[in-house]
Amino acid sequence: MSRFLNGRYGGLEPYTPGEQPKVPGRLIKLNTNENPYPPAPGVSKVLQWDPETAEQLKLYSDPEAAELVGAIAEYYGLETHQVMVGNGSDEILAFAFMAFQPENGRIYFPEISYSFYPVYCDIFGAKGMKVPLRDDFTVCPSDYYGAEGTIVITNPNAPTGMALSLGEIESILDANRNQLVIIDEAYVDFGGESAVSLLDGHDNLLVVQTFSKSRSLAGARIGFAMGHEDVIADLNKIKFSFNPYNLNRLSILAGREAIKDREYFRETCRKIIETRESLAAELRELGFEVLPSKANFVFARSGHMGGEEYFEALRQRNIIVRYFKKPKIDDFVRITIGTDEEMKMLIRATKEILDEKLRQEKREGMTKGEKS
Amino acid sequence: MSRFLNGRYGGLEPYTPGEQPKVPGRLIKLNTNENPYPPAPGVSKVLQWDPETAEQLKLYSDPEAAELVGAIAEYYGLETHQVMVGNGSDEILAFAFMAFQPENGRIYFPEISYSFYPVYCDIFGAKGMKVPLRDDFTVCPSDYYGAEGTIVITNPNAPTGMALSLGEIESILDANRNQLVIIDEAYVDFGGESAVSLLDGHDNLLVVQTFSKSRSLAGARIGFAMGHEDVIADLNKIKFSFNPYNLNRLSILAGREAIKDREYFRETCRKIIETRESLAAELRELGFEVLPSKANFVFARSGHMGGEEYFEALRQRNIIVRYFKKPKIDDFVRITIGTDEEMKMLIRATKEILDEKLRQEKREGMTKGEKS
Repeated sequence: MSRFLNGRYGGLEPYTPGEQPKVPGRLIKLNTNENPYPPAPGVSKVLQWDPETAEQLKLYSDPEAAELVGAIAEYYGLETHQVMVGNGSDEILAFAFMAFQPENGRIYFPEISYSFYPVYCDIFGAKGMKVPLRDDFTVCPSDYYGAEGTIVITNPNAPTGMALSLGEIESILDANRNQLVIIDEAYVDFGGESAVSLLDGHDNLLVVQTFSKSRSLAGARIGFAMGHEDVIADLNKIKFSFNPYNLNRLSILAGREAIKDREYFRETCRKIIETRESLAAELRELGFEVLPSKANFVFARSGHMGGEEYFEALRQRNIIVRYFKKPKIDDFVRITIGTDEEMKMLIRATKEILDEKLRQEKREGMTKGEKS
Repeated sequence: MSRFLNGRYGGLEPYTPGEQPKVPGRLIKLNTNENPYPPAPGVSKVLQWDPETAEQLKLYSDPEAAELVGAIAEYYGLETHQVMVGNGSDEILAFAFMAFQPENGRIYFPEISYSFYPVYCDIFGAKGMKVPLRDDFTVCPSDYYGAEGTIVITNPNAPTGMALSLGEIESILDANRNQLVIIDEAYVDFGGESAVSLLDGHDNLLVVQTFSKSRSLAGARIGFAMGHEDVIADLNKIKFSFNPYNLNRLSILAGREAIKDREYFRETCRKIIETRESLAAELRELGFEVLPSKANFVFARSGHMGGEEYFEALRQRNIIVRYFKKPKIDDFVRITIGTDEEMKMLIRATKEILDEKLRQEKREGMTKGEKS
């Protein structure tokens, strides 16, 4: 910390991104919920630059990103003034936490959820109101009825993968007509129900989505928000006071192509859902508890070892998953759904780890037996 | 404005970017200080995607952007922990205004300068302390001695194009040892002297630069900051609490290639400087006052018409320049240096406009003469 940093940020604890290995080739990377399939073929095509297209990089990008906003609006059947785009959904969320912090500072979100929310509260001086999950790790809608501030819910939730139904989301919106409710739908395309259909009749809803998961474009950094035109105008007011040209030319092109290809999108989402269901079944056969996931990851715990031990054992076998050293969830690991091949290797490694564990327990049991 | 926007942003006036025409082909675009030459050839090459490279977009970018940070550090002979990158220098400036707002809230900058500074002050609740320029539009260094807060100076300044010498910058740093001094060097490569050489011995200096001007990459959105490692760590703390993956994979590649090609960079900067000097001479011959510019634009006023009139007349001839409807500078227009060909067309249009003006004045003179 330098002597120039404003005191309010002295205790700020930044978000810790999942490990991004510098040489990913040798690793099976299942730690940051990326898509195992490449972006839609049109993305690769639009980036086959002829020199003339590359030359356009000398010019600023469109601060409205109209081409991309238009493509998203068309996809969801919205007006363009109901949509705005950001440099990843993290940027959209940052703008939203700034803009929609209520006067009393309270922002409600599940205690176990995207771990960036408390960081946004810290940086913008909001009061993070952490609402516990039920014992079965579900979000209880009625806990949010009559909230005295802005509400943020990831649906499906992370890292549990568990989803609220559209009816449950609607009940939260209806019970909080005078509070903004932000639904972070990063993982919605893998089996959840988007709240977009509730925009009609709910001016207190803001839906946030990303191209990083179901659109295979984590590296292009594209997020977007959909809401009432006044709410979107507020977000744009923040954006144009912070970083007007927030999307670069290349990502605007890539995003436009990705959202146009509906068939490729459906097909890759379907494959990931299938792989997820097989993986969950296999893990359960190996004695794991696997929370019912509607996302492109599963959250699972073994009866035989803690989350950290499983995480480390996989790491030694060049498989990275995500482990959270936090109360209530430190028995679990979060495993991104990869290709079927990658999941086979994960299961093979997991069997090895469990076998070793069993042998070790036997040896220890025998040693104890001898001593006693 | 929605009923959910926090009251503190009610009066916020966003920054107004220069016009980005949707169909730029028919226009000579001299309004946002872009480079008329394409990015370095290596940029185009690295973006010639084979499908495998395009596939990498499915993975998050490196939040440290180590490849790009390393290339910048090498170029300037710095350690990598003295450099950080942002999604354009606007994002870096936003982070800096957040991080380095002093406890008394005061941030000093020239009254006539980058018009985003007062917006940053507004959004982060800082007190913008506007320091007038001298009558000749120069920044007076001693006006900043003993400032009671953070100092931000664009050097060369915009929209005047006029530069402070390295000695003058050093005098400001020495006279404010306990204040952070941010030197915004967006235009420094066109004849200014970078303050980077002053980092040794001045832990109160933060230098901000961009790839949008001298590197022909406005559309890739890359800015960077150089400073003491503690100051850079503070900026990274903000970044990792706001938007960790702020640079996308494509821009990291493009930036790395652009900064590696030193010869192309020197050559394009040299051409722009030459074109600028010719343009300034020709405008002066036509009776314009042209401030002595070290940037890739000139700030000029005609003795025969106001800035708005000249701006509009050029616009009618499909040439866009920038005009600021503000006290003290509303006689001027800011003209980005384009190719020699574009400058010829600007001069031709300007002669037409002046001729028309003259004929019109004569007609009016005659009419008046007849009447009186």
